[in-house]
Amino acid sequence: MNVVELKPDTPSDVVIEELREGGLRLEMNNPPANALSIALMQALRDRIAAAGDDKAVRVVVIASAKPGKLFSAGHDLKELTAHRADADKGRAFFSQTMELCAELMQTIVRLPKPVIAEVDGLATAAGCQLVASCDLAVCTDTSTFCTPGVNIGLFCSTPMVALTRNVHRKQAMEMLLTGETIDASTAREFGLINRIVPREYLNQIVRKYAEVIASKSSLTLKIGKEAFYKQAEMTLEDAYDYTAQVMVENMMARDAEEGIGAFIDKRKAEWTGE
Amino acid sequence: MNVVELKPDTPSDVVIEELREGGLRLEMNNPPANALSIALMQALRDRIAAAGDDKAVRVVVIASAKPGKLFSAGHDLKELTAHRADADKGRAFFSQTMELCAELMQTIVRLPKPVIAEVDGLATAAGCQLVASCDLAVCTDTSTFCTPGVNIGLFCSTPMVALTRNVHRKQAMEMLLTGETIDASTAREFGLINRIVPREYLNQIVRKYAEVIASKSSLTLKIGKEAFYKQAEMTLEDAYDYTAQVMVENMMARDAEEGIGAFIDKRKAEWTGE
Amino acid sequence: MNVVELKPDTPSDVVIEELREGGLRLEMNNPPANALSIALMQALRDRIAAAGDDKAVRVVVIASAKPGKLFSAGHDLKELTAHRADADKGRAFFSQTMELCAELMQTIVRLPKPVIAEVDGLATAAGCQLVASCDLAVCTDTSTFCTPGVNIGLFCSTPMVALTRNVHRKQAMEMLLTGETIDASTAREFGLINRIVPREYLNQIVRKYAEVIASKSSLTLKIGKEAFYKQAEMTLEDAYDYTAQVMVENMMARDAEEGIGAFIDKRKAEWTGE
Repeated sequence: MNVVELKPDTPSDVVIEELREGGLRLEMNNPPANALSIALMQALRDRIAAAGDDKAVRVVVIASAKPGKLFSAGHDLKELTAHRADADKGRAFFSQTMELCAELMQTIVRLPKPVIAEVDGLATAAGCQLVASCDLAVCTDTSTFCTPGVNIGLFCSTPMVALTRNVHRKQAMEMLLTGETIDASTAREFGLINRIVPREYLNQIVRKYAEVIASKSSLTLKIGKEAFYKQAEMTLEDAYDYTAQVMVENMMARDAEEGIGAFIDKRKAEWTGE
Repeated sequence: MNVVELKPDTPSDVVIEELREGGLRLEMNNPPANALSIALMQALRDRIAAAGDDKAVRVVVIASAKPGKLFSAGHDLKELTAHRADADKGRAFFSQTMELCAELMQTIVRLPKPVIAEVDGLATAAGCQLVASCDLAVCTDTSTFCTPGVNIGLFCSTPMVALTRNVHRKQAMEMLLTGETIDASTAREFGLINRIVPREYLNQIVRKYAEVIASKSSLTLKIGKEAFYKQAEMTLEDAYDYTAQVMVENMMARDAEEGIGAFIDKRKAEWTGE
Repeated sequence: MNVVELKPDTPSDVVIEELREGGLRLEMNNPPANALSIALMQALRDRIAAAGDDKAVRVVVIASAKPGKLFSAGHDLKELTAHRADADKGRAFFSQTMELCAELMQTIVRLPKPVIAEVDGLATAAGCQLVASCDLAVCTDTSTFCTPGVNIGLFCSTPMVALTRNVHRKQAMEMLLTGETIDASTAREFGLINRIVPREYLNQIVRKYAEVIASKSSLTLKIGKEAFYKQAEMTLEDAYDYTAQVMVENMMARDAEEGIGAFIDKRKAEWTGE
């Protein structure tokens, strides 16, 4: 995926945005720990949501602007703590934070385009949730993951929503109850991570993934991703009733006709996203 | 499991059927790719459904008549494409195909007898779904698996119903979004496959599995398989309420009395299937 | 976790109880096989339930009083069989047994304190279910696991409720349909076990786990464990609506204020469990 165009608008303070051949790269830029402050969460949510309507974007990558040490340390504890001085002892602000966090994660899941987490460093609490919420995740061999809220009296209850939809129960429970950190290899074994790569190749490999996915029909990706998460919450019978219909609609679309025709004719398909 | 009897009826064109000591072997015979044409899906569905009522059948094996290259390549794209010329542009035929496919897969799940996939070669799209839909799956070390519909503009939306009920979400997503092929070892690690064996032993090992399972009480297998898939879709509380009742009914059956009695008396149980 | 106090009450015949620094250790003592007789199940259930209200207990460990050969062989087949002589051929007693078993397992899941299985030996049928029902499980490298009810005409229908909520479907199916035994390493790979340790360190490692968990805020553990199992049965949207609220309530609690404050101030938190 060669550099083709850079998006003209100025990057925000907390999210640096770059578009290359259909791959929108969002870099969290909230030093030193990429804490998920209200500002960072809003910026991420808005940019991800905007990507849904932007035809130029076919796949989204979420990374850190300063890779190596921290992917994201989760909620901004200082910001939260400052609001204990509020008249309501912070309740309204805590609600705003947790609801925004849940909204951000669901914006990723509901985005009709694949989202890849590119991780180099520690992903903790809501930072680990962010990785778990992406459709795919690639990390360096020195990356680590934890949900250590239990150490500070605040159980990782929202992170575990995403975590338990990625890994087995006892494995999630161990992370949640002990707060201990797992290495990249364990995270891959658990199912939280798709690939582990050496740091010097991380960017390149994620680009390759993004390139492969961006080369597919955007309509097909949209149909498939939406159906993936919907059917996962249905009974087997409902899931089949629903997806059989999805397949028929997909078959009627121009890109399926083109794709299947190209396959039969042994030529390259030309997608229009319709 | 020595050869004891061969079923007298002539094998169909697309499904070759053979019964040996309680193990019904169904071989898909639709060269070159065992494409799941309407004819093959109907034949498979009918034979599997018939096995449900046939007391001589205790376990079903699904294999390819020509192992080595392809287990099954999924839907018959030429058959589908031919119907684009229909007045409704194929919609009715596509519906028929997808509904029949969903029915075939659910016939396997609902069959009151275990079904084993014996895989040697590539299982792709609905072919991969067929493997995922079986209760158990054994494959050769050169077998491979993929859900590459995304490459032809037709997302593997029905295959993923079965796939996501076998493997973790990110692993399923990677197969679905990239369309890439995984090897046998990865398939086993993911949970799609139970055992990997060298090609020269495949038949023998699957027969051994079938023999072990066929040696159990058919009533017990029926009770257990039905309860397995039902409870999997319930809350923990409902699942326990339901299975506690299942256990009581199972205890009242003659085969449980015989089996438990034989265990206590240290003798071999004699099953009647009642 | 040094020995601090021994609970004064006399241990029962079937469950030996010992409390050390917040860790309640329950040892099943029903030789030779720790069969889950009515007496053992009632004693376990009562002691676990009582631990829920006992402020001195922060974590529960379930082990065998005579480790090495058997963790638990599951239901007491002789006790069950004796009731075939009842006027109702045992139906009422079988119901009592299966309902009590389901209640015991759910008492573990609903306990607002973490429960760790410490396994050294064979865990079979309801014994395997007991391991699967605990939040965490540690075993020796010679421990083994199976759900072999199918061998005695009684499918492991209640054990599979817990098993299928720990491991992938095909892996559970293989255990259930063949009745075959898996070793510790396979159990860990499947997700049934968190850690495998040499026998001489088992006790020490489990204590270390218990110590780590007992050092957390008991309120935080209670909030988190309850939310863990509740959200696991919800849709993604409901799970986020629910856990976002849980996080807010958790933030308002004294232990979160203390824990977050201590983290920011780089001092050790002092929990009150409020």
